[in-house]
Parts: sequence; C-alpha cells; structure tokens
Amino acid sequence: MADDLNPSETVERPARSAQDLDDPTFRAGVVSLLGMLAYGELVSFFTVVADADRAPSTVKKVRLTEVAIREFEHHKLLAARLEELGAKPHEAMARFRPALDEWHRRCQPTDWYEGLMKVYAGSSIASDFYAECGRFVDPQTRALVEQVLDDADHYAYAKQELEAAIVRDPKLAARMALWGRRIVGEALSQAQRAAADNDELTALLVDDGSGRGLDLAEVMHLFTRITEAHTKRMEALGLSA
Amino acid sequence: MADDLNPSETVERPARSAQDLDDPTFRAGVVSLLGMLAYGELVSFFTVVADADRAPSTVKKVRLTEVAIREFEHHKLLAARLEELGAKPHEAMARFRPALDEWHRRCQPTDWYEGLMKVYAGSSIASDFYAECGRFVDPQTRALVEQVLDDADHYAYAKQELEAAIVRDPKLAARMALWGRRIVGEALSQAQRAAADNDELTALLVDDGSGRGLDLAEVMHLFTRITEAHTKRMEALGLSA
Repeated sequence: MADDLNPSETVERPARSAQDLDDPTFRAGVVSLLGMLAYGELVSFFTVVADADRAPSTVKKVRLTEVAIREFEHHKLLAARLEELGAKPHEAMARFRPALDEWHRRCQPTDWYEGLMKVYAGSSIASDFYAECGRFVDPQTRALVEQVLDDADHYAYAKQELEAAIVRDPKLAARMALWGRRIVGEALSQAQRAAADNDELTALLVDDGSGRGLDLAEVMHLFTRITEAHTKRMEALGLSA
Repeated sequence: MADDLNPSETVERPARSAQDLDDPTFRAGVVSLLGMLAYGELVSFFTVVADADRAPSTVKKVRLTEVAIREFEHHKLLAARLEELGAKPHEAMARFRPALDEWHRRCQPTDWYEGLMKVYAGSSIASDFYAECGRFVDPQTRALVEQVLDDADHYAYAKQELEAAIVRDPKLAARMALWGRRIVGEALSQAQRAAADNDELTALLVDDGSGRGLDLAEVMHLFTRITEAHTKRMEALGLSA
C-alpha cells in the first residue's frame, strides 16, 4: 500500500510492453484512453477556434488558429494510432462524447478572457489527467500521449494574455477566479462520469492484482496532484483556486 | 467598346508583368486584391469550422475541418505574398473587414444545410468574383489566386450533401432556394461596398486609358457572367435562382 506516500510523488509501476497489447482487457483500456484523447483534441480544436473567432484582432485570430490546428493534428495522430491497434476511431471517441460535450456545454466562455481561462485552467487539468493515464499504457502509445500533451506554447500564450489583462483591469481577477472554480468543478464531475461509463479506462488505472495499476490510496493521490497543480496555476495569476 | 459581346465571353487583355509592380497604383491594386482574398480565406476558415461544429457526426466534423484547414493554408500563402510585395497583411485585410464581416453577419446559417448552401452558393460566387479580378494582376500573383480558388473538393462535398438532403426532404428545396437568393443578394450588395471603399481595387479592374482594364460594358458583363454561373449552380440542385 502506498497511503503513507507524499501525494505529489508518483509511484513507478512495472512498465507495460507492446506484448501486453495481446491482452484484450489491456488493449481495450488503451483504446479507451486514445478515444478519450482523440475526442478531447477534436473538441479542443473547436473550442480554440471559437476563441480565435472572438479575438479582437486578426493578428490574434491567426495566432490562435495556428494553436487550434495543432490540436487537430494531434487528433489525427491519435486516430491513426487507434487504427494501428485495429480500433475504429469514431467508435472509440463516441463513448466519451456525453461527458466531454457536457463539460463544454456547461463551460461555454462568454468572452475572450473566459475562453483563455478555459484553456489555461481547463485544458491544463485535462492534460494532467491524460498524462497520469498515459503512464499505464504501452511505450509507443505513451510516447504519443506525451507528444500530444506537450502544448506549452498554447498554455504560455493564454497565461501571458491573462496576466496582462488582470494588471489592466483588477476587477477581472474576481471574475476569473470564479470562472476557474466552475471549470474545474465541472471537469472533475465529468471526469467521474467518463470513468463510470468506461470500465476499460478504470481497469487501466486501477490495480487488478497484477501490481501494475494503482491502489485506492494512489488514485486519491492522483487527484490530489491534479488539484494541487491547478491551485498553483491559479496562484501564478494571483487568483485563489 | 465591347457592348456587343456575348457576356459569357471574357475579353483578353494585355497581360500584366512583374515589372508593372513598380507602378505604385498597380501595386496598390494587387495588394488590395490579395488583402481581400486573405481576409476572405481567414473568414471562410471560421465559417467552415462553424459548419463542422454543427455537423451531425464526428466523421463529418473531421471531413469539414480538413476543408477548413486548407482555407487557412490559403490565407497563409496570400499573407506571405503580401509580405513579399512589402505590404502588411493585417493592414491589407483590415480594409475589407467591414464588407466581409457584414456579409457573414447577415448570412449566418442556422443549421447544417444552410451552412452547406452558404458554401455551395456563397463561396462559389465570391470565388468567381476573385477569379475575375485575378485576370488583372501580375503572373505570380495570378498563379497564386488560381491556386487558392481551386477548391473543387469542398464545393463537390456541399453539393453532394445538399442533393441527397433535398431528395430525402423535398420541403428543404423551397427553404434552400430562398436562402440562396438571400446569400447572393447580400454578396452583391457587400461586393459593391468593398469596391466603393477601395479605389485601388476598382482601378485594377476598370480601364484607366491604358487599354488593360475593363470598360463599363465589360464590367456589366462580368457581373452577368457571375450571376449566370450562380443560376446554373442553383438549377443543378433543381432550385430556382
């Protein structure tokens, strides 16, 4: 058991190998993760384009469109990996549409800054969750997950725009703090829904006796790490989480 | 004068050469055309992504997103050509924002089919107009204009989806005919506005005594050609224009 661990430290588990993909349960878990990520990147594309459309200048429109297109390229890479594994990308994505669509429906930005905050806080927390899941898949899939999650550029852009805006308009800080809490509350609630709807994904994370998944205390620590990282991001903007 | 010509025949004019770009008036006209097109492609990107977002399945979402990304790539090529000519892309585009934004504001599709019709009828009529203008620029710019307007794939997709939908639901035909008329009426009205706001663009098309532009009768024929092509597109779907 790992309940006396520091929650911010991850426990190293025996790595999965490409051979493990012969196990249908494991393979179904990998397909689940890829389906969730592929749909997530597709929806992110639409979200960022909506931000670009709201952007005040054509310079910012073009800048954000380039960010969005990278998300779509990630979607294509994930769909290609699903096909390599013999899965149908659109079927694999379909199982995650209810939770992800609901999250986006409940967190529709009404202006430029809410859109940036959704990227800064919302996309980051989703990425952290995907990265945690990525620790439990085969090496090739894991490398792909790490590649698509490495989107520091977009994150840095949102942060820089928000920092400047909060300096110009201190009243924005209170509104952004509130909006950040809503985004994260809804994200956690929809992540639970996605997990409950997809046993294969849960099976990937949670130990089945093989010693390769997480025990319950470690699952708790995983969520602690994710919320701690969120708190730090909010503090970096001078906002309370 | 060319008023006894068949309006569907274009008159060949002495070709412009790269040397003509040394003439500031001509160069300003080329920059105008490129600015209009670059902004048009950027806005098209957003329009097609909005259609993709409305698409009923992830298969169609991905298909249309790929179409949209090609529009954005066109935008980048046009912006690069503007820079080659020593112009600032965002400044060149800004002059066409009022007319193009107003056209899109007045023609916002409310569903999937209206979005397709906007592509099928609206983007086509805009392309026809740009192609006519493209006859009066230097060879390198002309080749680029022809390249970015060659978007038969998108057009064919919208046509095929609309044809199938009209067969399934004949009532859709009346609604689409009405919507098509609105799109074109607004397009002609905003094209006039763009021309009135941008003397350089008009100077590119209309003869200044050099014998290289169009006389008034030919300008009329140009618009006749464009509306005839529109009528044929509507008839191809069994709709009255």
